[in-house]
Amino acid sequence: MMKIRMEDGAGGEGMAKFLESYVLRLLSKRRAGEIGLDELDDGASVRDFIFTVDGHTVRPLIFPGGDIGRLSVSGTVNDLAVMGAKPLALSSSMIIEAGFEGELLERILRSMDDTMREAGVPIVCGDTKVVEEKIGLFVTTSGIGEGNGALMRNIEVIREYRDYPHRFIVDRGLGEGDLIIVSGTVADHGMAILSLRKGIEFESGIESDVAPLWGMIEQAMACGGITAMKDPTRGGLSNALNELARKSGVGIEIDEERIPVKREVLAASEMLGLNFLDMASEGRVVMGVVREYAEEVLRALRRSRYGKDAEIIGEVRGESGEVIMRTRVGGRRVIRPPIGDPVPRVC
Amino acid sequence: MMKIRMEDGAGGEGMAKFLESYVLRLLSKRRAGEIGLDELDDGASVRDFIFTVDGHTVRPLIFPGGDIGRLSVSGTVNDLAVMGAKPLALSSSMIIEAGFEGELLERILRSMDDTMREAGVPIVCGDTKVVEEKIGLFVTTSGIGEGNGALMRNIEVIREYRDYPHRFIVDRGLGEGDLIIVSGTVADHGMAILSLRKGIEFESGIESDVAPLWGMIEQAMACGGITAMKDPTRGGLSNALNELARKSGVGIEIDEERIPVKREVLAASEMLGLNFLDMASEGRVVMGVVREYAEEVLRALRRSRYGKDAEIIGEVRGESGEVIMRTRVGGRRVIRPPIGDPVPRVC
Repeated sequence: MMKIRMEDGAGGEGMAKFLESYVLRLLSKRRAGEIGLDELDDGASVRDFIFTVDGHTVRPLIFPGGDIGRLSVSGTVNDLAVMGAKPLALSSSMIIEAGFEGELLERILRSMDDTMREAGVPIVCGDTKVVEEKIGLFVTTSGIGEGNGALMRNIEVIREYRDYPHRFIVDRGLGEGDLIIVSGTVADHGMAILSLRKGIEFESGIESDVAPLWGMIEQAMACGGITAMKDPTRGGLSNALNELARKSGVGIEIDEERIPVKREVLAASEMLGLNFLDMASEGRVVMGVVREYAEEVLRALRRSRYGKDAEIIGEVRGESGEVIMRTRVGGRRVIRPPIGDPVPRVC
Repeated sequence: MMKIRMEDGAGGEGMAKFLESYVLRLLSKRRAGEIGLDELDDGASVRDFIFTVDGHTVRPLIFPGGDIGRLSVSGTVNDLAVMGAKPLALSSSMIIEAGFEGELLERILRSMDDTMREAGVPIVCGDTKVVEEKIGLFVTTSGIGEGNGALMRNIEVIREYRDYPHRFIVDRGLGEGDLIIVSGTVADHGMAILSLRKGIEFESGIESDVAPLWGMIEQAMACGGITAMKDPTRGGLSNALNELARKSGVGIEIDEERIPVKREVLAASEMLGLNFLDMASEGRVVMGVVREYAEEVLRALRRSRYGKDAEIIGEVRGESGEVIMRTRVGGRRVIRPPIGDPVPRVC
């Protein structure tokens, strides 16, 4: 008899298979608009809105650069933002272990509040359950986002170059010749969590990148031409690029030497025998941009607080559905999506 | 140092205090429209929509008359419905224990699907996390509902009688003279869960009432005059009536002998020394109705599958903010909201 495994909830190919064999197979009503459950995009469309949800079970609750409060608000804000939707309202459902320290809960709620104020979005409804199991705290956030001026401008620009029959920015939106941009160094979040667990956080000095990205993305969209976006969370850049390539039916080629990664993150991942391309970021976005607008979008990203290390890392070429990395030494390597994130309980 | 207690998440007064001292105090952005977090209503308003969320941690996962799948879909459908909103789309976020039986998950997902089809509402987005802690399965559902013809007709009727400045049906909507209706027998769900835990479910024959109520509520609203609604879940009828009375600034008087309750539920609660008025239902609604329309609403409820035992149980009188029960023997007793639901982990 099949049992649920850790990798079934760790992003990557394991989760994709889990979703196909359980959720998509067993639920018969899966959409209310253009984008539903089948698209496995960052959110779904409902009337003129985007609706999204994420459960957060990160361990530990507080980590270098953030905590489960900042993570849960940022995660939902970013899932809306990468579809081009302006975050309007969030919900928060907390499941708390009986005996949990009130002081720690207060610290986490203050961090949620700071992040909400930074992102300009309220929590309008919520729920609380207290359980005996030794879980610490789980926080599930859902959110509603709406169309906006920057999104409309962005789509108008795309339509000067090709058909774009979507009202939001979708994973399957990439087209031939688009350039691929990543908004900053990758894998910081995953490595910050892992360093802490391995007891090397002080030597490494690595902090999570967790941040709410709506402001940055709004400014980038105002330039125009962003055809697809994802936040490279569970499964990292490998998973995000593979999802975009597969859903869009295109090939993506990236240059190893152009991928922004902190020296210490690269060193730590090599020391631990892990591929930083598979590791989560929580304050980054990877996007395809109509070639003619890529430089302008890049400049807009670099002007923003969370986008100063943005780089063009590659382009869309052909229809292979695969991701190819041109290595530093001149080789070509297929980048596969990982089975699951190499860091369990990363978000 | 304060620690979080079971009663902080069990509905009732304990949870109300927890929400005031943590959530409402620490979060500074709490609304996107007329109804926000402060109202502690069944959902919040966002543009022309209602947004709601609930986490489900019920034990056991399968119980007489239902399971966590039917419960989670019904819970969110009903939170939308009691505000008069037609359910448009749900999200589902599952946190699953590693090693959970795939067959059991399949059974629960099939039950979610049955309930979604019954309610006519899709799950459009979701998330899955797998954890090592021995939790079984937690399901958090959120939902979006919208204004509709029955709601508009309902509010038009109220406005023939008095001011009703709300666009949805709100907890604070009760007015002098309204009659109080409950749509069926109370406490079935709580007692079904408790009987199972006490090992007396076969003798008791009690089944949960868990059901999605949009269809029934739509037909009742089409008659008109429903001024406030709640589903009496955690904390039961005591808690629901007290919330309505306090928020509306009115007194509620109910007649003990008119409260529908199954003989076996009453017997089991007396045997266990519990007050059935404090125990959860998951397929019932309690409502205030403009007196002139109460009989018509009652008939509409009784025509519906889940409303055949509906009764008028009392009326709104005065401004005490309290709930008074006229007892079978001619006395008057104040009904206080419980500190928490007498059945832990009831939903």
